[in-house]
Amino acid sequence: MPGNTTPGVDVRNSRWFIEFTSPHEAHMHAMERFLITSESKFQTMEIAQSYAFGKCLLLDGKMQSSERDEFIYHEGLVHPAMITHPEPKRVAIIGGGEGATLREVLKHRTVKEGVQIDIDEDVMKMSEKYLPEWNAGAFKDKRARCLTADGRKFLADAKKGTYDIIIVDITEPVEGGPSYLLFTREFYEIVSERLTPNGLVSIQSGTTACTDLAMHAMIMRTLKAVFPVVRSFSIEVASFDLPWGIAIGSKKLDPVKLSVGEVDKRIKKRGLGELGYYDGITHQGIFQVPKYLRNAYAKKGDVIEDNHPMFTAI
Amino acid sequence: MPGNTTPGVDVRNSRWFIEFTSPHEAHMHAMERFLITSESKFQTMEIAQSYAFGKCLLLDGKMQSSERDEFIYHEGLVHPAMITHPEPKRVAIIGGGEGATLREVLKHRTVKEGVQIDIDEDVMKMSEKYLPEWNAGAFKDKRARCLTADGRKFLADAKKGTYDIIIVDITEPVEGGPSYLLFTREFYEIVSERLTPNGLVSIQSGTTACTDLAMHAMIMRTLKAVFPVVRSFSIEVASFDLPWGIAIGSKKLDPVKLSVGEVDKRIKKRGLGELGYYDGITHQGIFQVPKYLRNAYAKKGDVIEDNHPMFTAI
Amino acid sequence: MPGNTTPGVDVRNSRWFIEFTSPHEAHMHAMERFLITSESKFQTMEIAQSYAFGKCLLLDGKMQSSERDEFIYHEGLVHPAMITHPEPKRVAIIGGGEGATLREVLKHRTVKEGVQIDIDEDVMKMSEKYLPEWNAGAFKDKRARCLTADGRKFLADAKKGTYDIIIVDITEPVEGGPSYLLFTREFYEIVSERLTPNGLVSIQSGTTACTDLAMHAMIMRTLKAVFPVVRSFSIEVASFDLPWGIAIGSKKLDPVKLSVGEVDKRIKKRGLGELGYYDGITHQGIFQVPKYLRNAYAKKGDVIEDNHPMFTAI
Amino acid sequence: MPGNTTPGVDVRNSRWFIEFTSPHEAHMHAMERFLITSESKFQTMEIAQSYAFGKCLLLDGKMQSSERDEFIYHEGLVHPAMITHPEPKRVAIIGGGEGATLREVLKHRTVKEGVQIDIDEDVMKMSEKYLPEWNAGAFKDKRARCLTADGRKFLADAKKGTYDIIIVDITEPVEGGPSYLLFTREFYEIVSERLTPNGLVSIQSGTTACTDLAMHAMIMRTLKAVFPVVRSFSIEVASFDLPWGIAIGSKKLDPVKLSVGEVDKRIKKRGLGELGYYDGITHQGIFQVPKYLRNAYAKKGDVIEDNHPMFTAI
Repeated sequence: MPGNTTPGVDVRNSRWFIEFTSPHEAHMHAMERFLITSESKFQTMEIAQSYAFGKCLLLDGKMQSSERDEFIYHEGLVHPAMITHPEPKRVAIIGGGEGATLREVLKHRTVKEGVQIDIDEDVMKMSEKYLPEWNAGAFKDKRARCLTADGRKFLADAKKGTYDIIIVDITEPVEGGPSYLLFTREFYEIVSERLTPNGLVSIQSGTTACTDLAMHAMIMRTLKAVFPVVRSFSIEVASFDLPWGIAIGSKKLDPVKLSVGEVDKRIKKRGLGELGYYDGITHQGIFQVPKYLRNAYAKKGDVIEDNHPMFTAI
Repeated sequence: MPGNTTPGVDVRNSRWFIEFTSPHEAHMHAMERFLITSESKFQTMEIAQSYAFGKCLLLDGKMQSSERDEFIYHEGLVHPAMITHPEPKRVAIIGGGEGATLREVLKHRTVKEGVQIDIDEDVMKMSEKYLPEWNAGAFKDKRARCLTADGRKFLADAKKGTYDIIIVDITEPVEGGPSYLLFTREFYEIVSERLTPNGLVSIQSGTTACTDLAMHAMIMRTLKAVFPVVRSFSIEVASFDLPWGIAIGSKKLDPVKLSVGEVDKRIKKRGLGELGYYDGITHQGIFQVPKYLRNAYAKKGDVIEDNHPMFTAI
Repeated sequence: MPGNTTPGVDVRNSRWFIEFTSPHEAHMHAMERFLITSESKFQTMEIAQSYAFGKCLLLDGKMQSSERDEFIYHEGLVHPAMITHPEPKRVAIIGGGEGATLREVLKHRTVKEGVQIDIDEDVMKMSEKYLPEWNAGAFKDKRARCLTADGRKFLADAKKGTYDIIIVDITEPVEGGPSYLLFTREFYEIVSERLTPNGLVSIQSGTTACTDLAMHAMIMRTLKAVFPVVRSFSIEVASFDLPWGIAIGSKKLDPVKLSVGEVDKRIKKRGLGELGYYDGITHQGIFQVPKYLRNAYAKKGDVIEDNHPMFTAI
Repeated sequence: MPGNTTPGVDVRNSRWFIEFTSPHEAHMHAMERFLITSESKFQTMEIAQSYAFGKCLLLDGKMQSSERDEFIYHEGLVHPAMITHPEPKRVAIIGGGEGATLREVLKHRTVKEGVQIDIDEDVMKMSEKYLPEWNAGAFKDKRARCLTADGRKFLADAKKGTYDIIIVDITEPVEGGPSYLLFTREFYEIVSERLTPNGLVSIQSGTTACTDLAMHAMIMRTLKAVFPVVRSFSIEVASFDLPWGIAIGSKKLDPVKLSVGEVDKRIKKRGLGELGYYDGITHQGIFQVPKYLRNAYAKKGDVIEDNHPMFTAI
């Protein structure tokens, strides 16, 4: 960078991924190559190589994860909740078809079973073929089970008290899309009942940008209607263009109570190896969320319900 | 939001601010209105009303701050450093022509003098006229002094040991722009010498996106070549499109050592009133930066120098 | 241009006008300045200075005319029809609030009265103030009359056989916008009845791009349901981004029958002065439309009617 | 279209081709699919499926031709010149690797040999494989010869007086690209010498938009420095976003002198079959160019020479 002359926009590049995030906001990413464009039963799925982020997975025109920063999203979605649990053995992942959430889950030596339930078989198949770095062999782990099914129905049919950890790794609630009934109070009640007494759920929960907090705050309120302990934090995933929230609902254990040392000890004992985003210091920092988030959580407002659903603005 | 139908892109809107942040990345913001477009001696200056962020200040095609989230930037740039100092009396702001940094500085009752040195008189004048919320009366505070001058020359000419706090609130080092000599080791040495023994400098220091850390890490390395204590944290200012770094160089005091209670006590004693972003919990969280930032800081690399400057990619 | 080095995209410019012309097509114009953005009773109106086209008038996010190429649109909309008429005395302009159509009409010495009926008073007022080049004094011509009224109602209320020429210079039929009932068979019947026996109507009639002919062809079919002679031609107005059609409906006279010499003679006799686009050679060329347009006109299809209206794709 | 509700921008689509045509102008085309992205020795080559235009060929980020409107470009580039010649037997195509120009050339029964000389073998190979509609079997015609070579060198090495028609179907003179020495006076002199006494050259010659005429006018001036008869016309190819010029240089014969009937007679006799763009009426219309083009041609200015080349603005 030092001494470089300004190179300017790459006008010989023809390929841009434009993600409209609201009627008035969009982000433009130049792409080296669109590798796969396909229509599944549920959504448009793409895999593309971007200049800034390496390979990217896009669903219905929205960035799901990118090669260079997916570690932040997947470590953040999985480890704070799982480390808070003293010995997570059975884990269910709702969504997460690309396999990176499963990859992080299976890093925990305590895990006996990681079951991934994604509604869209094509996402799993395409990811396995074209995004091998995402699952990194997780699909072949003997402890893994990958199902193509409606995640809500799967949980509703499961025995109560089955899972120590449930991770909800789904697309945004686009109207007409496959996800919106996985953001409601009724869904979280099903989740709560399938958790063991020490169980926690970890959820991707929309942007935490201070200018666009409505969806995230509503998810937090809905979780609080069901779980006694609810925590959140923000991750900074540049390919998402906005800070993103992870929400944790817990039946008993509070992530905030873990010390730096205890987190680092558990990481070591679980055999998580060298992570890129998460460790004791990270854990300690993230749950101290900025004041504007705490203010937003303190406000009253609607709870998301099956007959009062929430959709993304676009 | 619940129950809304998808509104889609606002195609009746004609006005977009496109900010190219690299040859391959850009962000599109629809604007309700471009209020002011003017050419100063140093840069193109604009004030516009955006749908997402309210009024915005743009310099040379880059977002500087927006009505709805400037509080995060300005509180973050000012308070963590100033609260770390037990009794900041004299404060110099390099840049900061829009007056919001000065506004936050003057909230501290301890301050006897806040001097703002911006090279571009037009930015001050236009901001005073069109962005009154930014300075909020600070320009008329008896403790304030606003100068039009080269900030580096101003400091070089100042007596050593003059300021308790120096805040560097400048545009990015665009090649040919007014800022690039305010990012070098030589400049930080001038800063250090003008600080009192307990002094700290707080600096906007580029994006902390994990995919684009080179500039931020280089600023951190350069600060470490001059200051015994160097800390950083990220703020999430949605109008910047990327997480943004604040770096603090300190001659002695370490921000990390302040407890939540001590921060909140000082906030109260200083008369800061009700803030939007900053308090004891925020302070405690932000300095525990994610592991990938700590990893980046641990790497060796170039230091920015007058004859080895650093420029933005675009 | 010779010897220039590639300058690249102007990344210091922040201001872009993006015109979406379909769900899948858009055009981006960098703007030096947005001069006026206002909401009238009927539409959003803007006047902006573009780098490529000089001052531009935008209505509801769509380019209406630009300083550097409006002469093509306005000469093309007015003169082929008016020159075809041997002695046009009374002319009505439906729409055309910016005054440039009136300017061209009044150049014809034969004209005793030019009446302009635009539904949106603000367009007239703003254009008079900010686009003086457009009307070029026409609003003060003693032969001119400018009314704020519904053009269809105005014509319906006019005496039959009043006008030698009627010019329909309106915005595209955006759903919910003010124009769509001025594209129907019923409207053209009203027009026909208000024309004198030698009368002609000249109409902006949508793009003639071979890939997007549906609207233009439908307007042509609708005109043919009412007028014995119907002709068309394309103009190349770069600020429109697409070739644009002018359709002429005539009760008797055929524009194609005029020789180059006769056109040039009438131009001289009428005192049109030095035009930029139109003369005898232009007249001769334009009516020989490419084969794909003739093929499209030959196809059967719907006619636009009040209860079967046509709207733009976006 | 009638009765449709406004569908809005397709926000579920992620794939946009943005073509910057100047530092301040660009066009956005949503793409159903990017089929091929490859780097040849000379340029980036892409084949993509657009919503508006079907399959498209892009070179170095610039639209070359699209499935739905390439007939206009290729018929316009080939037939007016070839029909003007009473019996074209030998034809050379400089560039034209996608094979559509060759396809049109070989439709003329009189042709004994059509030789296509493109510098970029990959364009030919990719087009043959992925754009079969472009060559439509022409590559397998016994009269065809396809060479990978520098077109200028090929002609310079050819015997004088060899070709009845030479067609220059090349990319724009991008600085650093393969084409700029095929726009100079010296090149046209080589062309002229290789033509038979009745020979003509047909050249794609830049946009004829009235706001951006410099390049086209310079090509016309340069041709006039070499050829006694020079004519031009504009075609409206929507995928090019701007009207585009075809220039014809002729050693003796003047295209304007052919009557509608004579053109149609020759079309029939040559066995051209049913064309989409070109016939006698089209021929008659196109050469009567609008007055602003004639005015631009009448102005004095530079001629393009090897040591005084011309480049596109971007």
